[in-house]
Amino acid sequence: MERKGPPRSIKLPETIEVFRNLNNAKRFAIDIGGSLTKIAYYSVLSYRRAHYSVDGYSAADDHIYELSESARLHFVKFETKYIERCLDFVKANLVGSRESMIGKIIKATGGGAYKYAAVLQDKLGLKVEKEDEMGCLIKGCNFLLKNITDEAFTYHRHGIPEYEFQTADPNIFPYMLVNIGSGVSILKVESEDSYERIGGTATGGGTFWGLGTLLTKAKEFDELLELAEVGDHRNTDMLVGDIYGGNYKAHGLDSDLIASAFGKICYSTRQGQQINYSDADVARSLLFTISNDIGQIASLYAMIHNLKKVYFGGYFLRNHPLSMHTISFSINYWSKGKVQSLFLRHEGYLGAIGAFLKGAEQCGEHYSWQENYVGSSALEPQPVIWFDNFNKDKVAITQLELDRESQRLFCPLLANPASYIPDTVDLNADEEARNYWLDCFEKSIDKYVDAAMSSQADSETAPERAKQFKEKYIKRLHKLRQQPFAYGNLTVRSLLETIEHYMREFDFPDPYVFTKQSENEAALSQLQERLNYLDSLTPKQREVELIIGLLAGNMFDWGARAVVDIMVNENFGLNEAREKIPGRPWIVDHLDLWLERLKGPPHKQAAIFVDNSGVDIILGILPFTLFLLSRGTNVMLCANSEPALNDVTYKELKVILHQAGIISPKIKEVLDQNRLIAMETAQTGPCLDLSRLDCKLAKKMSSVDLIIIEGMGRAVHTNLDAKFTCESLRAAVIKNKWLAERLGGQIFAVILKYEPPYKP
Amino acid sequence: MERKGPPRSIKLPETIEVFRNLNNAKRFAIDIGGSLTKIAYYSVLSYRRAHYSVDGYSAADDHIYELSESARLHFVKFETKYIERCLDFVKANLVGSRESMIGKIIKATGGGAYKYAAVLQDKLGLKVEKEDEMGCLIKGCNFLLKNITDEAFTYHRHGIPEYEFQTADPNIFPYMLVNIGSGVSILKVESEDSYERIGGTATGGGTFWGLGTLLTKAKEFDELLELAEVGDHRNTDMLVGDIYGGNYKAHGLDSDLIASAFGKICYSTRQGQQINYSDADVARSLLFTISNDIGQIASLYAMIHNLKKVYFGGYFLRNHPLSMHTISFSINYWSKGKVQSLFLRHEGYLGAIGAFLKGAEQCGEHYSWQENYVGSSALEPQPVIWFDNFNKDKVAITQLELDRESQRLFCPLLANPASYIPDTVDLNADEEARNYWLDCFEKSIDKYVDAAMSSQADSETAPERAKQFKEKYIKRLHKLRQQPFAYGNLTVRSLLETIEHYMREFDFPDPYVFTKQSENEAALSQLQERLNYLDSLTPKQREVELIIGLLAGNMFDWGARAVVDIMVNENFGLNEAREKIPGRPWIVDHLDLWLERLKGPPHKQAAIFVDNSGVDIILGILPFTLFLLSRGTNVMLCANSEPALNDVTYKELKVILHQAGIISPKIKEVLDQNRLIAMETAQTGPCLDLSRLDCKLAKKMSSVDLIIIEGMGRAVHTNLDAKFTCESLRAAVIKNKWLAERLGGQIFAVILKYEPPYKP
Repeated sequence: MERKGPPRSIKLPETIEVFRNLNNAKRFAIDIGGSLTKIAYYSVLSYRRAHYSVDGYSAADDHIYELSESARLHFVKFETKYIERCLDFVKANLVGSRESMIGKIIKATGGGAYKYAAVLQDKLGLKVEKEDEMGCLIKGCNFLLKNITDEAFTYHRHGIPEYEFQTADPNIFPYMLVNIGSGVSILKVESEDSYERIGGTATGGGTFWGLGTLLTKAKEFDELLELAEVGDHRNTDMLVGDIYGGNYKAHGLDSDLIASAFGKICYSTRQGQQINYSDADVARSLLFTISNDIGQIASLYAMIHNLKKVYFGGYFLRNHPLSMHTISFSINYWSKGKVQSLFLRHEGYLGAIGAFLKGAEQCGEHYSWQENYVGSSALEPQPVIWFDNFNKDKVAITQLELDRESQRLFCPLLANPASYIPDTVDLNADEEARNYWLDCFEKSIDKYVDAAMSSQADSETAPERAKQFKEKYIKRLHKLRQQPFAYGNLTVRSLLETIEHYMREFDFPDPYVFTKQSENEAALSQLQERLNYLDSLTPKQREVELIIGLLAGNMFDWGARAVVDIMVNENFGLNEAREKIPGRPWIVDHLDLWLERLKGPPHKQAAIFVDNSGVDIILGILPFTLFLLSRGTNVMLCANSEPALNDVTYKELKVILHQAGIISPKIKEVLDQNRLIAMETAQTGPCLDLSRLDCKLAKKMSSVDLIIIEGMGRAVHTNLDAKFTCESLRAAVIKNKWLAERLGGQIFAVILKYEPPYKP
Repeated sequence: MERKGPPRSIKLPETIEVFRNLNNAKRFAIDIGGSLTKIAYYSVLSYRRAHYSVDGYSAADDHIYELSESARLHFVKFETKYIERCLDFVKANLVGSRESMIGKIIKATGGGAYKYAAVLQDKLGLKVEKEDEMGCLIKGCNFLLKNITDEAFTYHRHGIPEYEFQTADPNIFPYMLVNIGSGVSILKVESEDSYERIGGTATGGGTFWGLGTLLTKAKEFDELLELAEVGDHRNTDMLVGDIYGGNYKAHGLDSDLIASAFGKICYSTRQGQQINYSDADVARSLLFTISNDIGQIASLYAMIHNLKKVYFGGYFLRNHPLSMHTISFSINYWSKGKVQSLFLRHEGYLGAIGAFLKGAEQCGEHYSWQENYVGSSALEPQPVIWFDNFNKDKVAITQLELDRESQRLFCPLLANPASYIPDTVDLNADEEARNYWLDCFEKSIDKYVDAAMSSQADSETAPERAKQFKEKYIKRLHKLRQQPFAYGNLTVRSLLETIEHYMREFDFPDPYVFTKQSENEAALSQLQERLNYLDSLTPKQREVELIIGLLAGNMFDWGARAVVDIMVNENFGLNEAREKIPGRPWIVDHLDLWLERLKGPPHKQAAIFVDNSGVDIILGILPFTLFLLSRGTNVMLCANSEPALNDVTYKELKVILHQAGIISPKIKEVLDQNRLIAMETAQTGPCLDLSRLDCKLAKKMSSVDLIIIEGMGRAVHTNLDAKFTCESLRAAVIKNKWLAERLGGQIFAVILKYEPPYKP
């Protein structure tokens, strides 16, 4: 079986990056299946972050950035026939880490782990440590379900939406995993450590592929799927209607139900009927036969073991719509709707993830992981990669990259964590909204690029990186236009997060860093004046003015094109913003409820999820915060961990509070008393996912009796409909004409939503 | 779809009789499946029976026979493509009954019932009344399970025996029926009237056939099965061992388990391995794939519904050993031995039987049915029949014929009816015994033929009929030598019954009629002397002598070659027979137990199952009966309903008792008092199946506290090991050297087995 490796000169085209960061690869695992191989490795990345100190901002570009490290998990999937070529490529590119690899182990799983042990040892110098396939699958599946946003989905062919992604659920057990590789294994998973292979069938992907190549001209698995997509199984399958001339009512069988797979082939011939069928018809019949069969067997096992959720993994499905449809139909039909069939966006990686995690301390319980939208392939296979070797073989490679994060937890104030959906609008389902927002993001791109460029005006590489950023991001937007489901639920939040991923990937860690700095400084200079003005009001006037000020402050948003135009072209301050706030009633107007509430006892602890830098945080939020503090309420200001647009970050917030304390003795006092504190949310985009809060914050949230969420990203695009077990106040100005009108208002419409604790 | 019918001149070769008794066909039903059609009809047959009157025997041949009528159900199965030709044949041969058919109905079921309604109306002039397919299947299955001996069996490939037939069980419910036609239906049957289609799969016979013709050169279903029989699936299927290099111990998967059906086709190619596979390998893989799949799905449904017995029906199996093996293996594997897979000898006829029974009053609850071993095809398809038409097509026809009987019931004294097996030795399992008995029966055939001929010495047709009888019967013996399982359990009983079926079929209703007559007359002339002798003994001597006389009488058996030689060549009477009884201890010798028992209270009611005519019944049984009567015990003498060898029949027994009453006033007295009565057993052969007793007798048996069974056929070949809830006495002389030696004795070894009521 030994074969000569390809020459060392293998190069992948520059434009498509596969096997990224091999240079810094620290640990390997591999899952070698009969048809597909998945290599996993862990890399440590250096990247630049904006740096802030309590002394204020550094003006020089050189000083504003510091180097930071982060960890990333890489998974690369390719056909097993290319395994030696890929291992050669890995070996050639290990460079820095090659020395440190010698004598170390590689965790290996999958059927090929046995066969390729010597090759692995030979190519990479790594000692192969075999891991049980099923154990790896389960570990990988648990990991994905717990960590990856929108990992699981139900599929509804021709449905709106076609893909319905499952929200994160803190309780993933028990579930059934049906792994459809060459054969099928059916596993019952009851906890992190307890699972059982309860069944399986030999009719799997190998059967489809094997029979498919015998029955049609197609040789490749994907060719068979393409054929199946255009075939008509009614030319080969005998339907109930073919036999009974209609429905078989006595037993509730519909006329278009398949009575006998391939039953028409002989029946028609023997009945003297002419039948015509194509390769495509045969492929479709075969796909239906095998998918139906697996679906039925899976649903029977699920019923026997009383399991409601069945996840499907393995190479057979490859998230192929027709296969998923047949499986889903079959599960639903045979379980009479009692069992739910769920698919995984990263089903192909389960074994590799599991193998990697076995003993990988870097991936313990105290971390969370986030999919990197730049380095990860979409739900459907990525474009083909060419190896520049003498075989001129096409090698389709797909990738998954996961960035390590500090541990994330659910906000304990959510009334029903299992059904919490951060996003207000599902752009998969809402075509009108999807088209609007994709247009909107595409039109905004130049403003992002401008900001990115001006944040690194001295850099020689910035123009090229900015160009690439723009190209790639627009390409991604086009992809999402075709396949809105490509990276899970398409939402305004995911689109905003994607921008941030691209920005960081092209080394623009904080495009608005200077803007934020100058605006913070300008706003700080007006803080005392604003506080004095508020002091001059009667208590009643003040309570109203604090809300108006908070809303006016929220106008200052570089993410909103309507405002950007005003901010750039006009001399725009808090008072100018106040003028734009529409008269009451607002589209959601709970001001009176809120004022009424203020007559009651003070809150013990408030958490305010803040939005923009500058006027917003300093002239809107800070005075409001001081008011709460004056009532005896302690306040946590919760800010993003990483930059996103001009949103204030946790690090900036700390600087701002320090500087505000210099201006206002009241502020200094509450800071010193720890009655006012800054917390980081662990968010990296301008929205707010309360299922992934920084664990320190999540723990502190338990004592909160008033949650305040500010701004479009956090209180409108997300969390507008969230239910809390404590009182909540959501405040935002809709700085988008289309959305404002959709919500029944006009540009700069106001949402002020006060709710008592949710009682179901 | 209308096609011109074949010319009227269709003739079936004389030597193979299909569509028998069409002449007298009274009612039709038809089950038209996608591939096979089954026609059912009911005929009334006239046949000759020996006639007895209380006045004694008539000496003249003409008077000894009377015409009698009986009912028969015929089922004829052929490929649906020949349906029009077969209907033409039926039409042409209806003759007598054609007129009476017009305007009548034909019950029709199966998918084709819809399609061929017009053709049926046109060809037979019968109005088509459609019956639900599933309902017919269930009705047919219930009927077979309740009526047909050894209908259900388990299959053990390479096992000894390979076929294990299930004994009749009075409680057949609940069970699951898996009908594998073009598709598969899975039905749960809970009672005669209650069933439900709980599932199914489209992967069935049509899939095997359809894919098989696409994948191989074979075009016919049976060709595919033949291919599969010689193929090696390991050339196409990927086994657990191919992946893991051995067992996958962590999950208990054996290395030779199929991991992926057809998985080697692509895997090997892609791994650069050379693979060679033949059409036969592919056919075998396909058969395994589909059988495994159906077996697994069936076992899952059985487990969900908690059903222990799964019967398989439909054309896919056709009792094909390899398919049955795979299904059985699969059921056993997936249910972990909890579910039993059972096959039906007549699985192909379920729908037709059910359709016929719908509304057929002639087949109500008050009848039983017996398979006619002459007119019914063996378990594996019968030879091919040629239609003499212009197409020169081969038409394979198989048949099932069922003879109507009065209602049969289980003997209520059986300790455990569900596990009652009449037969002592299973000739399927015991090869030595099988070979011996098949030889023995073949060697005896000329004696049967001689007897048959001499019973109809005046008949011109007798020699030809006797010749045909001999030919056919020897052919049957040869068939049974090759396929001992061809008609269910092969036992001495079934071999003996088969002779009787052939005798009656060739119009030799009672070959020993004259022999029995003369022997009865001779024995009656010695009765008084025998009674006087017994009277002369002391009570103790008499009790022993009665048993000795009973045993000596049992020597007179024309079914036993060893005795026939003596009887024919010597002047052989009771005293001569006494001399041949060996000294004690006998091989089973409970004489002392019996004599001890006689010291106790008398029995209330004895039932004696009697054996031979002549000396046996008159000089052995009658004195013993008088002794029991003298103790205060009432006695039923139970005799065969139909002639078998020289066994005394019920009708003869009545004549004998009448005549004995004339000789002995004591006998007259107990007859008049109804303390001594004759009963018929409903048996038609020289053995005794206590699961099929005449219903009147079965009802009377409830009051019996002593059951006495006499003779090799009834007490050794059958019932030697039966357990009764009352006292029992079995008495027989082993008039067969081989059997005597096998039981540890010599020729004329004695079995006298007394048992108290069985307490489990």
